[in-house]
Amino acid sequence: MKKDNNSVYGGHTSHEFNEDLASLNADFLKMGYMVRDQLTNAIAALMDGDGFRADEVRNNDKIVDKLELEIDDEAVRIIARRQPAAIDLRLVIAVMKMVADLERVGDEAKKIAKSALALSEEGQAPRGYVEVRHISNHVLEMLNDALDAFARLDSELALRVMKEDKIVDEEYKAATRSLLTFMMEDTRNISRCMSVMWVLRALERVGDHACNISEHVIFMVEGEDIRHTPVEDTEKLVGR
Amino acid sequence: MKKDNNSVYGGHTSHEFNEDLASLNADFLKMGYMVRDQLTNAIAALMDGDGFRADEVRNNDKIVDKLELEIDDEAVRIIARRQPAAIDLRLVIAVMKMVADLERVGDEAKKIAKSALALSEEGQAPRGYVEVRHISNHVLEMLNDALDAFARLDSELALRVMKEDKIVDEEYKAATRSLLTFMMEDTRNISRCMSVMWVLRALERVGDHACNISEHVIFMVEGEDIRHTPVEDTEKLVGR
Repeated sequence: MKKDNNSVYGGHTSHEFNEDLASLNADFLKMGYMVRDQLTNAIAALMDGDGFRADEVRNNDKIVDKLELEIDDEAVRIIARRQPAAIDLRLVIAVMKMVADLERVGDEAKKIAKSALALSEEGQAPRGYVEVRHISNHVLEMLNDALDAFARLDSELALRVMKEDKIVDEEYKAATRSLLTFMMEDTRNISRCMSVMWVLRALERVGDHACNISEHVIFMVEGEDIRHTPVEDTEKLVGR
Repeated sequence: MKKDNNSVYGGHTSHEFNEDLASLNADFLKMGYMVRDQLTNAIAALMDGDGFRADEVRNNDKIVDKLELEIDDEAVRIIARRQPAAIDLRLVIAVMKMVADLERVGDEAKKIAKSALALSEEGQAPRGYVEVRHISNHVLEMLNDALDAFARLDSELALRVMKEDKIVDEEYKAATRSLLTFMMEDTRNISRCMSVMWVLRALERVGDHACNISEHVIFMVEGEDIRHTPVEDTEKLVGR
């Protein structure tokens, strides 16, 4: 259920705590959008064989790493300073956990950029790019939605992301099967197909992280930890 | 540097806090050893083509997931009840972060168990098993050492784990290269080799998680966050 920010963030320990939390959330979103851009650029570098852009993604990963440490620090300072009650505390800790997911999405973007460099040297767009484009659009949308769900505290949107992840997993399986067939047809395809395989795997992992972020958003809104809970049960909770 | 537990855990907010922390750490280790056993069993299931054992690993993953939630809960309760100062707070949060790593090692063990099932149906031990055995021994040792480093607050041992990870990365690259060659020799090898490839990737990820845990141990002992810091710089810190 979508709740307005006041009902979730309001009525907490103190006005100061709410201000701290708003600032923490803003920084989280800033990192989130940066990581999303990293992923967009990594995919574009792959598709266009653009080594320069791939290098840029690899370099920018240091900034993402730095943001992770900064937000962690900020969260610890808020807890130490405001000593929030258990429920508020969980909100701050949820942000720290989601930051770890974002950092890993950044790592996957870096891996894709590396594969983009390797593949651009091979010339000639290999098979599997159609699938890469399709799945990357899908997980980028999931990541965007997860960030939006966080920004708007929209647990229905978060639930939708979790459902999309099941579809991405199927798409991923189909894509790897088709690449496997292509490898079997001609052994000269193997090396390039393997690079594409790793890209697909990285994208599938991004979907998982978007899903993790959504789980935390649902927890923030509904107050229940739904990690490791079947989606059907979560559906009942959110639709309540 | 190895420090005795008193110098790290002593002198904190309160006697009660220290007791809570000791209990949290014990639970963390319990989960750590369970995850290590899961990994050991997954590898054994793969090597022996033992589908029964592989199924057991897949089922036990639910227990690992449950432990993660329980330890997280325990950590939040400690923070809310004891309202520790920033330095103590960081110790508790470090445990929560390490628990996330352990949970992911559990996931990798589950993935390996799945591959074990797939491969056991194919009969005939495929190429790459020598490499799998070697790398799995290596990362199991790293995971063990990371847990020991945590138990004994031994930052030198933690640093050693981080250095080992570089070696595992090289071993992993060599193993995938040799599998690639084998796939090129005969297309009938491709499908089985791909399964082994995923196992190797899972093991490489376990090495990364052991490394993450070690980074947190160094932070707990030395008081400095060394995530995203080059190993050489960490070396100076620990040797200080």
